[in-house]
Amino acid sequence: MLGELAHIGRDPATNGYVRDAWSAADLELREWFAGEAQRRGLDLREDRNGNLWAWWGDPSGTPGVVAGSHLDSVRQGGAFDGPLGVVSAFLALDRLREQGFEPGRPLGVACFTDEEGARFGVPCMGSRLLTGVLDPDRARGLTDDDGRTLDEVLAAAGRKPYLLGRDDETLAHVGTFVELHVEQGRGLVDLGSAVGVASAIWPHGRWRFDFRGQANHAGTTRLEDRADPMLAFADKVLAAREAAVRHGVVATFGKVRVSPNNANAIPGLVSAWLDARGAGEDAVRALVAELGAGEEVAEESWTPVVDFEAGLRDRVAGAAGGVPVLATGAGHDAGILASAGVPSAMVFVRNPTGVSHSPAEHAEEDDCAAGVEALARVLEDLCR
Amino acid sequence: MLGELAHIGRDPATNGYVRDAWSAADLELREWFAGEAQRRGLDLREDRNGNLWAWWGDPSGTPGVVAGSHLDSVRQGGAFDGPLGVVSAFLALDRLREQGFEPGRPLGVACFTDEEGARFGVPCMGSRLLTGVLDPDRARGLTDDDGRTLDEVLAAAGRKPYLLGRDDETLAHVGTFVELHVEQGRGLVDLGSAVGVASAIWPHGRWRFDFRGQANHAGTTRLEDRADPMLAFADKVLAAREAAVRHGVVATFGKVRVSPNNANAIPGLVSAWLDARGAGEDAVRALVAELGAGEEVAEESWTPVVDFEAGLRDRVAGAAGGVPVLATGAGHDAGILASAGVPSAMVFVRNPTGVSHSPAEHAEEDDCAAGVEALARVLEDLCR
Repeated sequence: MLGELAHIGRDPATNGYVRDAWSAADLELREWFAGEAQRRGLDLREDRNGNLWAWWGDPSGTPGVVAGSHLDSVRQGGAFDGPLGVVSAFLALDRLREQGFEPGRPLGVACFTDEEGARFGVPCMGSRLLTGVLDPDRARGLTDDDGRTLDEVLAAAGRKPYLLGRDDETLAHVGTFVELHVEQGRGLVDLGSAVGVASAIWPHGRWRFDFRGQANHAGTTRLEDRADPMLAFADKVLAAREAAVRHGVVATFGKVRVSPNNANAIPGLVSAWLDARGAGEDAVRALVAELGAGEEVAEESWTPVVDFEAGLRDRVAGAAGGVPVLATGAGHDAGILASAGVPSAMVFVRNPTGVSHSPAEHAEEDDCAAGVEALARVLEDLCR
Repeated sequence: MLGELAHIGRDPATNGYVRDAWSAADLELREWFAGEAQRRGLDLREDRNGNLWAWWGDPSGTPGVVAGSHLDSVRQGGAFDGPLGVVSAFLALDRLREQGFEPGRPLGVACFTDEEGARFGVPCMGSRLLTGVLDPDRARGLTDDDGRTLDEVLAAAGRKPYLLGRDDETLAHVGTFVELHVEQGRGLVDLGSAVGVASAIWPHGRWRFDFRGQANHAGTTRLEDRADPMLAFADKVLAAREAAVRHGVVATFGKVRVSPNNANAIPGLVSAWLDARGAGEDAVRALVAELGAGEEVAEESWTPVVDFEAGLRDRVAGAAGGVPVLATGAGHDAGILASAGVPSAMVFVRNPTGVSHSPAEHAEEDDCAAGVEALARVLEDLCR
């Protein structure tokens, strides 16, 4: 079923996926989701923030159990991050029906909008808006690389951007959320298990550094007359690695925007995004304070540590067949919902290389099937 | 007259100009040139490589004297780099006509195509193709940031890309070329002169460095498991500055392309362009050899030193009113023509800050007027 999506948004030069929120590829993926819901006779709803919900049973009376993930991708990402969770949710539902299971509560499949933040810079946009963590005015004003605001992009896609924001009606439908996801490290490889359950998500954040200089001619400006912000940026990249080692966290400058970005001009501005995460919030904060001292820095997002509720976590791990429990450094919509008080859990599927956010991301077919089976058992247990 | 062009391709957010070759802005500038030629009753010709020529008199018998420059811009450039030379050429011609001057040779105004190389990466594309320095097959295959080839772009603009290449018929029309340009340093400020004449152009080149690593998740990939090419790039930026000081040349990393350029992904590839120039070719070559050792580097362009022919240079400096002579680190179409054996000279107009390739680029109105007057006297002398 993942194969049906294999062609959408794939860059033939790299085999990487480019599936920005509200791009043509994303709209095609949303159509695919709608088709899958329809084929199964599920009730399809798009909420005010663009998240998709396909319901078996009506959640307006009794809150339901929801499984799902997202369909958008980082740029040049892999095939599994996101879609595996959505596809597995549909397949787990199919399995339960084949087995004649009659759920005691409504069962839903969800697709969250713009989980990766590849286009507008804020990850988990759909779940952050839904839960009210992200201010809708700020969201509407976010711009993509072409300078288009989310407001414009949503309007062009036929949506109503003025409706963005916390949506209690939709939240009230979600009794429990379970997100299945390909693991983005090698924890399950080390544990020798195809499937695992999340204990916690590391605290993590994203900061934009603006290094300002004076744009000038690369040939005629003497070295001593230059204010070249590329030098300050280079210093900071090396300082970030050194500080990450020292504080025992990870820190990455993965996105850079240079202005004017001419080969024959000294830049006037280098903007660079720092991603920092670690097991301890204090260590992450200390690193950012150190790197940001004296710099022009804006915090674009901050997600405190997420400790998934232990009772639900252990119930899910048990229902999944007694699988191991492990922490992760990756952010997910399940973390946003958990922080907002929605009982949430995550199921991970083994990643043999640990590589993710890359075309090389992979999961074995047998492990994916084990993930579907585990998810079906979890949903069965939660829906009794 | 420069004011008529002030709105074309200006980015309202920065007041910088974006006038890529064959963009809508460039096509509008070309229309403006055609209109100016027509208003003056000049004979407009576009050569096989897209360069524009407006002739007073027919150069097919006697080779003419040509003044001009270019209308395209670096991205986020200033209003003067290029257009000042074209506008000044028209105004100098007007002045000669007002004074009743009857040229003894044809007099032309030229606009060269894609001098900056902002779109396809090769500067002085029009003059390099015209003189046969740039292979037309290579030119046709060059791609812009959207992956469009020059071949496609020219065809879309209604041109005939199969005609690109050395054009002896057009070259035979050009007896002498004089390019007026805003100075891109503060040489004339130090000399206390509004106008000067070029002695030489430094040897200069452009090299692309590809730093390869392994794209991966910024949150879940342990520092010790990373192959992050941003670190190698940062090292190289700092090494380039250190080596430039040591070799007495200038070296700049002004353009960077990161893939995938996600805030939450370690890059798989960082490509960066090194621009290096200096008074001595050996010093520039030594710096590049040192920085390139062990790296994946491609030379994108190399322009040897240009020494403008001394007899013409002194004649121009004399006709311009005994102005000073000085060297420059900036490349120009006049340098390409001079290297190809076309007698060529350059007139510089003072730049009070020395800033260029930036919205802050400036020249005083009086100095621009002095430039027009000097150019008129030079053309008068050369056309006798």
